[in-house]
Amino acid sequence: MGSTCEINAAMSIWRRLSLFVLASSLCSCLCRAEDSAMENIVTEKKAEESHRQDSADLLVFILLLTLTILTIWLFKHRRFRFLHETGLAMIYGLLVGVVLRYAIHVPSDMNNVTLSCNVNASPATLLVNVSGKFYEYTLKGEISGSEVNDIQDNEMLRKVTFDPEVFFNILLPPIIFHAGYSLKRRHFFRNLGSILAYAFVGTVVSCFIIGSVQTMSFVSAFSSGCSGDESENQRSEVCGLFFRLLMYGCVMLMKQIGQLGGDFFFTDCLFFGAIVSATDPVTVLAIFNELQVDADLYALLFGESVLNDAVAVVLSSSIVGYQPEGDNSHTFEAMAMLKSFGIFLGVFSGSFALGVATGVVTALVTKFTKLRDFPLLETALFFLMSWSTFLLAEACGFTGVVAVLFCGMTQAHYTFNNLSPESQDRTKQLFELLNFLAENFIFSYMGLTLFTFKNHVFNPIFIVGAFLAVFLGRAANIYPLSFLLNLGRKYKISSNFQHMMMFAGLRGAMTFALSIRDTATYARQMMFSTTLLVVFFTVWICGGGTTQMLSCQKIRVGVDTDQENFIGPDGVERRSTKQESVWFFRIWYNFDHNYLKPILTHSGPPLTATLPACCGSLARCLTSPQAYENEEQLKDSDSDLILNDSDITLAYGDITVSTDATGAHTSGTPVGGVAVNSDEALDRELAFGDHELVIRGTRLVLPMDDSEPPLPLDSRRHRHKNETMS
Amino acid sequence: MGSTCEINAAMSIWRRLSLFVLASSLCSCLCRAEDSAMENIVTEKKAEESHRQDSADLLVFILLLTLTILTIWLFKHRRFRFLHETGLAMIYGLLVGVVLRYAIHVPSDMNNVTLSCNVNASPATLLVNVSGKFYEYTLKGEISGSEVNDIQDNEMLRKVTFDPEVFFNILLPPIIFHAGYSLKRRHFFRNLGSILAYAFVGTVVSCFIIGSVQTMSFVSAFSSGCSGDESENQRSEVCGLFFRLLMYGCVMLMKQIGQLGGDFFFTDCLFFGAIVSATDPVTVLAIFNELQVDADLYALLFGESVLNDAVAVVLSSSIVGYQPEGDNSHTFEAMAMLKSFGIFLGVFSGSFALGVATGVVTALVTKFTKLRDFPLLETALFFLMSWSTFLLAEACGFTGVVAVLFCGMTQAHYTFNNLSPESQDRTKQLFELLNFLAENFIFSYMGLTLFTFKNHVFNPIFIVGAFLAVFLGRAANIYPLSFLLNLGRKYKISSNFQHMMMFAGLRGAMTFALSIRDTATYARQMMFSTTLLVVFFTVWICGGGTTQMLSCQKIRVGVDTDQENFIGPDGVERRSTKQESVWFFRIWYNFDHNYLKPILTHSGPPLTATLPACCGSLARCLTSPQAYENEEQLKDSDSDLILNDSDITLAYGDITVSTDATGAHTSGTPVGGVAVNSDEALDRELAFGDHELVIRGTRLVLPMDDSEPPLPLDSRRHRHKNETMS
Repeated sequence: MGSTCEINAAMSIWRRLSLFVLASSLCSCLCRAEDSAMENIVTEKKAEESHRQDSADLLVFILLLTLTILTIWLFKHRRFRFLHETGLAMIYGLLVGVVLRYAIHVPSDMNNVTLSCNVNASPATLLVNVSGKFYEYTLKGEISGSEVNDIQDNEMLRKVTFDPEVFFNILLPPIIFHAGYSLKRRHFFRNLGSILAYAFVGTVVSCFIIGSVQTMSFVSAFSSGCSGDESENQRSEVCGLFFRLLMYGCVMLMKQIGQLGGDFFFTDCLFFGAIVSATDPVTVLAIFNELQVDADLYALLFGESVLNDAVAVVLSSSIVGYQPEGDNSHTFEAMAMLKSFGIFLGVFSGSFALGVATGVVTALVTKFTKLRDFPLLETALFFLMSWSTFLLAEACGFTGVVAVLFCGMTQAHYTFNNLSPESQDRTKQLFELLNFLAENFIFSYMGLTLFTFKNHVFNPIFIVGAFLAVFLGRAANIYPLSFLLNLGRKYKISSNFQHMMMFAGLRGAMTFALSIRDTATYARQMMFSTTLLVVFFTVWICGGGTTQMLSCQKIRVGVDTDQENFIGPDGVERRSTKQESVWFFRIWYNFDHNYLKPILTHSGPPLTATLPACCGSLARCLTSPQAYENEEQLKDSDSDLILNDSDITLAYGDITVSTDATGAHTSGTPVGGVAVNSDEALDRELAFGDHELVIRGTRLVLPMDDSEPPLPLDSRRHRHKNETMS
Repeated sequence: MGSTCEINAAMSIWRRLSLFVLASSLCSCLCRAEDSAMENIVTEKKAEESHRQDSADLLVFILLLTLTILTIWLFKHRRFRFLHETGLAMIYGLLVGVVLRYAIHVPSDMNNVTLSCNVNASPATLLVNVSGKFYEYTLKGEISGSEVNDIQDNEMLRKVTFDPEVFFNILLPPIIFHAGYSLKRRHFFRNLGSILAYAFVGTVVSCFIIGSVQTMSFVSAFSSGCSGDESENQRSEVCGLFFRLLMYGCVMLMKQIGQLGGDFFFTDCLFFGAIVSATDPVTVLAIFNELQVDADLYALLFGESVLNDAVAVVLSSSIVGYQPEGDNSHTFEAMAMLKSFGIFLGVFSGSFALGVATGVVTALVTKFTKLRDFPLLETALFFLMSWSTFLLAEACGFTGVVAVLFCGMTQAHYTFNNLSPESQDRTKQLFELLNFLAENFIFSYMGLTLFTFKNHVFNPIFIVGAFLAVFLGRAANIYPLSFLLNLGRKYKISSNFQHMMMFAGLRGAMTFALSIRDTATYARQMMFSTTLLVVFFTVWICGGGTTQMLSCQKIRVGVDTDQENFIGPDGVERRSTKQESVWFFRIWYNFDHNYLKPILTHSGPPLTATLPACCGSLARCLTSPQAYENEEQLKDSDSDLILNDSDITLAYGDITVSTDATGAHTSGTPVGGVAVNSDEALDRELAFGDHELVIRGTRLVLPMDDSEPPLPLDSRRHRHKNETMS
């Protein structure tokens, strides 16, 4: 709920929708008696009326979401996979938007009064003396001069427009936190290098490619008369586009980088590149989950999309921050560029540090208190601490959404181990629900806004250019990077995986939220309209075609994540962390396993075993009694402790147990007789860890013999239920 | 989140608290670079600054709640029962309030500009032309002339004051819904008659008693110079109070009922009576739960407090609606009185009907779709439908809070049976969490507002009068009603139970929310301040003394609800529904069991068995396959079906099974050979139902022999964990 003050705009959106509320008219007659009794309290009545209106508006929205849920159920029930819930929400939003735009003609009620005052500043609060009575007004924002007339003409459609900060402060945080909290971390860490490459390098590349391509179409759009009648010369423009592109191409690019005054266009288009680079393949991932597509492909896509959201947010804000010094010089400046880069690094690392810090604090609090005896308190604390990350980051001027992402990951990695099984369940389900509601809200609003936003600028050249740019940008992100990564990867990213990743570059909530944030200028309005179309296209077409694409690319479906690794021990097809085990990852893993996990959680080897002898007292102080117990019990070969809840086990199996399983080897007598901390050993341990996890995880669902492979059917169905939504 | 637009006020409350945020100052230096780069965008920067401020303010509040949670844990951990979490939240709020009031001196930033304009109306939106630029302002409300100067002087403390509608539209609904949803319905229905009597008759009696007493002290407070220096003649006033009371007593009462111009005082004081009549013994009930106090006493207290909240809300709004016709005549008018009564009935029954209606719709939707295969969708639907009740009621001019209460009860009674076990868990936990957060928020704000609200009017006479009135009103509610009820009850309400109920008349969230709603006039401000003191006193003193009072009144603790009923079958100490089985309750029970439950849920006897033959096809259409299965299985004497989740079983055991258990007798071959629907039979069935429920419910926790009584220890610990918070 961030700074929830913005949600009042959310109310007014549904203001006029109320005409549809049948009940409203039916029941309000009963209250006339009450109203007439208070005829002398005009203001109060006005406020009450407005409150009633707001309630009705919000109600219609709630009913819209309810309708979406019921339809989704029908689709799921009938195994209809061509339309995801987000796509459906957009369609319902579109329908309501059409009705709003074309079917309802509310006469303008001339509510606005323009005052010309001799005030020098725009104060936050205004007291207006209306014939002896004082009314209090609060500042909403500045309005450009040209809009003033629009406002008075077009009261209704204006009210339907949201305060864009709602998305950033209320709706995105739970979505992003949920993404971090539900990351399948085993596969994520196995592919960490590739994911980081795609997320950071890839997003920046994509941003610059899209920026460059769009600069061309932007300039040509401007030069071909952006304000003229577009419908007439639309055809010729589209035809001429590719020639223009070639023509303008290098020239314009050089102009931008040179000092020829096009700087304004270029940063604007870079901004567009940044916001459109945030992928959101929620539709694709839902289908992947349902069809049990290869876990590494899933991890690559999900990890990339989660991280590139963060990168895109920070990137776009640093591009906005790129302001060459001096008001008139639109020149390229190394200093400003460096400053932007500094902002990027500072904001990103600051947000990262804050997110991790609050996660660590939560882990410590849950470790050193016995809060786990009271799941409600534990859940409440977890929720409040996670929310405070967002607020802390925003208060410090960092990016709350990014902080929340890393907080979610830290909570999943450390805090989750300290929670009671019931709280693990509760927190997971809570954020799943919040994510679901927020996501569907955003997508249905997206549909709505296509018709209700009144400053749409649909420029065919810019739109075609954008689709081309998005395509090129995604290609320039995936293929070259995959080639480079494959040089270093033991387990290559195959070409059909690359095509699938290329195809799965959907744009969603983050792109929309970034683009709606600022629609003040003509350029930004054009970007917003174009972004909407890009989102619609990718979600409906790419999202809907996922199953076809999967079968077309001959990507295996029905792969059981757990079983796949089970083959490991015989050495055949064993896909361990080796494939990505670059040196920094190994160092981090060792450090995390030997020091961080024991300090922050109840799991892992006791610190007394891992810390040097000189820190003995500190180690004893920090090690929880459970850690010693773990050590004891892990020495037994048949230890099935710790996992209590079958539901959690399967969804988060990799989190809870992999450490313990590995711990058995690291801290206890090593099974294979390998020395602790040797790199070779680490690999084997990780592989064994994965393997043992599977057996344990599944055994708790259905107690069965150790020697047999786990029942894939049952566990799959189980997991399917839990994660279909994620 | 009701009409969430009001929460923006919630933000500004914590505005100045930010000075305490250490991190803020540490980190903001990093962002200076960013800020300085945008020096030309003044408005944007201002908005960003304000957003940052809001985040910091809210953050401090979140940390306050976190601190409360940690301290609560410590108290629970150490079994320290003298201070409940709500009392603790108030203390922390008080501390912050003291710091705000006395330790921080923020120089007034003169943000307000008063404009004198020649506008005839107060429009909702205002456009201000400030030297060429247009700024948009939105109407917040009217301010009384005398406050205008205050506002400019006292910017800071004014900002700390909340929009009171936040409580009604955001914080109260989850609390009230949770109360309805978590009602222990078996004991509630057993004592339904008494609870209704206490809630309706008792609240009205209490309201009028308090109103009358307060009118006296109100008048004496006014006459003894309400605006003079109160500290000097405070002592003499207190001493003289009782004499005054006797003096004014009958005179004033007669004056009010006669036409002597005191009417204004009386309706105002009746309003005070109504808001102070809403009891909220959350502290007491938590201790009852922990100590396993008699279930009937618990049901009486909880049921009364839940229902009298609803009565008080509607009562207070109808008292406000009592406006004698003609502006000048402060006379008592039969018509206006009748109209008020009509409003009361209309609003209450309307809200009731709406709440039940949405509950029924949810039940039907969950019954006739297979939504239970997807717990997330089911939970989301449940949440949205429950929220829509509130919005629908508000949109129709009814009282959302009341509607939400009855919606919660309907959801628990019907919909809950249709939900999948996982959703039962999820919904229960979700609303438990929301209830916890909202409750602690309200109580900590209560503490804060004692020091930050700037229009406090502490009038000693009125305060002493209020305490006396509250005491008298509670006594006049409990003792006479208990006497009358005992005439009709088989199982009497013993005198120590009566004393305990008298003592447990705490005032809490609802009273506060009602009193802060309108603080425009001097009288209302006095009421608000007094209400705060009443809440503090009752929560701290009465709440803290609960354990002492329990032992003083020799009320049995450690009574196992389940075991207590187990004695039933031998006829000794069998406390069945007989004790309350008045005719309307029997009719309702039969109707509910034979028709409503089968239509709305999967449980109960199939409709084909209960409906007359002529409706055969309709019955077949409405009966779910599960109902036939139930019938089949219930014919077996050893049927332990349906209950899946041990956790749910114990908390909601009365819901799920009692019907089925009874259904076995009603629809199957009656065990005792009694005819269906006979009153005698019903009693026996209810008793048997209760009894069998116990065995079944407990058996599922720990499978054990039927012939032995259930393990009280284990089930108690189990329940304890789940319900300590409720």
